[in-house]
Amino acid sequence: MKKENQKKESLNEIIDQILNLLDKNKLVDRLVEKQDIPKQKLIKNLVNKQSLNKLMRLLNELHSADIADILESLPIDERLIVWDLIKSEHDGEVLIEVSDAVRQTLIADMDNTELLAAAEQLDTDEIADIAADLPENVLQNLLDNLDIQNRERLESTLSYDDDTVGALMDYDIVPIREDISLEVVLRYLRKLRKLPDHTDKLFVVNREGSLLGVLPLKKIIVNELDLKVKDVMSSDVVLFKPHDEADHASDAFERYDLVTAPVINEENKLVGRLSVNTVVDYIREEAESDKLSMVGLREEEDLFSSIWKSVQNRWAWLAINLITAFIASRVIGVFEGSIEKVVALAALMPIIAGIGGNSGNQTTTMIVRGLALGQVSFNNLQRLLKKELGVALLNGVLWGGVVGVFAYLLYGNIKLGMVMTAAMILNLLLSAIMGVMIPLVMNRFGRDPAVGSSVLITAMTDSGGFFIFLGLASIVLI
Amino acid sequence: MKKENQKKESLNEIIDQILNLLDKNKLVDRLVEKQDIPKQKLIKNLVNKQSLNKLMRLLNELHSADIADILESLPIDERLIVWDLIKSEHDGEVLIEVSDAVRQTLIADMDNTELLAAAEQLDTDEIADIAADLPENVLQNLLDNLDIQNRERLESTLSYDDDTVGALMDYDIVPIREDISLEVVLRYLRKLRKLPDHTDKLFVVNREGSLLGVLPLKKIIVNELDLKVKDVMSSDVVLFKPHDEADHASDAFERYDLVTAPVINEENKLVGRLSVNTVVDYIREEAESDKLSMVGLREEEDLFSSIWKSVQNRWAWLAINLITAFIASRVIGVFEGSIEKVVALAALMPIIAGIGGNSGNQTTTMIVRGLALGQVSFNNLQRLLKKELGVALLNGVLWGGVVGVFAYLLYGNIKLGMVMTAAMILNLLLSAIMGVMIPLVMNRFGRDPAVGSSVLITAMTDSGGFFIFLGLASIVLI
Repeated sequence: MKKENQKKESLNEIIDQILNLLDKNKLVDRLVEKQDIPKQKLIKNLVNKQSLNKLMRLLNELHSADIADILESLPIDERLIVWDLIKSEHDGEVLIEVSDAVRQTLIADMDNTELLAAAEQLDTDEIADIAADLPENVLQNLLDNLDIQNRERLESTLSYDDDTVGALMDYDIVPIREDISLEVVLRYLRKLRKLPDHTDKLFVVNREGSLLGVLPLKKIIVNELDLKVKDVMSSDVVLFKPHDEADHASDAFERYDLVTAPVINEENKLVGRLSVNTVVDYIREEAESDKLSMVGLREEEDLFSSIWKSVQNRWAWLAINLITAFIASRVIGVFEGSIEKVVALAALMPIIAGIGGNSGNQTTTMIVRGLALGQVSFNNLQRLLKKELGVALLNGVLWGGVVGVFAYLLYGNIKLGMVMTAAMILNLLLSAIMGVMIPLVMNRFGRDPAVGSSVLITAMTDSGGFFIFLGLASIVLI
Repeated sequence: MKKENQKKESLNEIIDQILNLLDKNKLVDRLVEKQDIPKQKLIKNLVNKQSLNKLMRLLNELHSADIADILESLPIDERLIVWDLIKSEHDGEVLIEVSDAVRQTLIADMDNTELLAAAEQLDTDEIADIAADLPENVLQNLLDNLDIQNRERLESTLSYDDDTVGALMDYDIVPIREDISLEVVLRYLRKLRKLPDHTDKLFVVNREGSLLGVLPLKKIIVNELDLKVKDVMSSDVVLFKPHDEADHASDAFERYDLVTAPVINEENKLVGRLSVNTVVDYIREEAESDKLSMVGLREEEDLFSSIWKSVQNRWAWLAINLITAFIASRVIGVFEGSIEKVVALAALMPIIAGIGGNSGNQTTTMIVRGLALGQVSFNNLQRLLKKELGVALLNGVLWGGVVGVFAYLLYGNIKLGMVMTAAMILNLLLSAIMGVMIPLVMNRFGRDPAVGSSVLITAMTDSGGFFIFLGLASIVLI
């Protein structure tokens, strides 16, 4: 009667079941391959059919988001077997739910007729989400089959950047007039029989289609039915324009606890709607791609991507790091004479560089977060710098003292210990300055400070740390 | 008439205005301090009053989430001046919206009467959110003033872990019976006059309070009023229990596009409601704290925390890194003899360690993401390992070749170049194995693989890289 919340565990169980069923099939395949006789073939077909039927029933009872999850978790061969078992009426929804990388593998497995059928199950804004992955002729075919309004919508949605409201909005709007009574509204809605998902409010427009306000469903319900729309509607509306940044919109949804919000064009005409489920997806995807981009990965790699594709996805980051490592290596090279004389320097120098990098990354993370929340600007730069320098100095004295004592105890050279302490303090101060400045400067030049700040910081604190430590040592010890 | 979406820019303008107004005040203060004569005092009071009044008007027109944002962006002195200007009727809402670190500074500035007044503006579930920061006697006082039902709710909310559904749910439920008609439901709702925020559905319960289903408001609106609740309600409900993990709940909200969902206890009794605005906040906070914890920061530090507090917040991470750096340093120490003979080793060794660390972190990030999405388990370990080893081998040959040539060109020693290439390949293979295994093992032992994986990987690839490179060099070159 009631469905328990589909948890990860139960989904995992289903995946295990599916893997088992697939294994059974493979087993039969292998058996049959060995001795290709008609009788065996018959058995194979029977066993196969039985388990495949079970699997098919199991799969097609699931929500499309759950099917998508299973497809994501399967290596490509099994993924395509399962994909073929999904009833074609679910194809469209599943294609929407999977990640870009997995969608590409699924679409590559479908012919144009199947693709067209799948896409035709979708709303205009959903087609736009997968349009980039569709073959040119399928997309053209789709456009030809749409009516004028939907074709225009699809073309305009496709024209907006990925991270704008225009790309996220849908067209599930229920517009009403302001001079009718709630009674009439209610009669109209009853005639519609079905309201779009997430409808928490209707949009009030005038004859020209300009937005006048919104009418929450709650208000229709709790107010007397002879009241007019204009008496009950809110005209104080949080609204968006198609070119607004999606980041700002998701902030507003969080800030003002919105479920849906109208999108209007430059002429104040209602053109679409933004709803919280799209915003939640957007927030999740942003958080994911932030984490991936911090180590130089793009979203396009799924867990089971080919080795070659993975190498392509990761090489740029490794190349950049190689360059910074070469530079650090040359800094050390300058001091090879000193190292030859006091070989302990070689063993101690990674400590200075490592702690500097860590400390710098902590500072950068705080600043990047402050930038994202709009709390950091060049206005309070001085204050932030003063704080971070203070933290660095305190940490430098503290940990610099520890490493100084460590070096002294290990090598019995008090001057070496003092060089360690001084180098640690100086490198932490450098890391504080760089940790504050690098994200601010990147932000100033319109770059995303979350991407690449970490590489730059580490490059600075590595080369800088080696230079400071080996330089000081050359002066004091040699 | 209509309010444009409050964007970051306009918020920044307001902050600038506020800073200007505060600066004006300070300026007057300084002027007056110099020549303390009554006339000056009068002027000061007038100017002060004028700008403070303007500031107060400005502030109190804002949404509480916007006020919270401004408070977050201000250094502590200015923050408290602005806080005093906020009308006490907004105090409660603002305290809910600010971060933990800032809330503590605000509460420290309030006396018990103010705190009690602020807390009394809040719902039970909101009080629970700030309870940890309230002084003991204020909390006791609050509990004493609540009626039995709300006291029990507050106590039970406080008893749940932070990351469970119980801690996130609210009590804004509108329960109805199944055997009444929609007409009666509508009459009942009209009598209520106001529905809780985000109400998209009513909860259908029996005489004992057990959940039977949900009735979306949409259905009341589009169906004939003589139908009974039980004919229209959905009994196929996504529901939660208070001890369910908040992560699972937020997954379900994203997956099934929910706006609200019922929370029931072990006896199937309806106890509360989870709504999408809480879930959005939760997702955002989790994403934030993931980023912070990756470099060993906790949420408790705000941008303007004192230096001493910041040092405390960051020291644990630096200490761990110091230990791993010490270990790496001792690994190098073992090979000091070799470095003395071939000093180029000292300059080249950070390259091997650095690239290994980067590559390992890429692998770990993919695996941690797969774990979070439920796509990785010990079931497909072998396959993942094979893929990552393949990627590492390919990268090793590629980049190892580059660094080998680099070393050869620089030092004219072909054997040294070959050692570089071999060490790079081996360290990348090590980083692939560790990158896959460390998060899986951490996950197996119930630890969050996102926290600490990166330190462990880097420790392994540093010490391992030095050992592999210097060890190989000692065998081949010395």
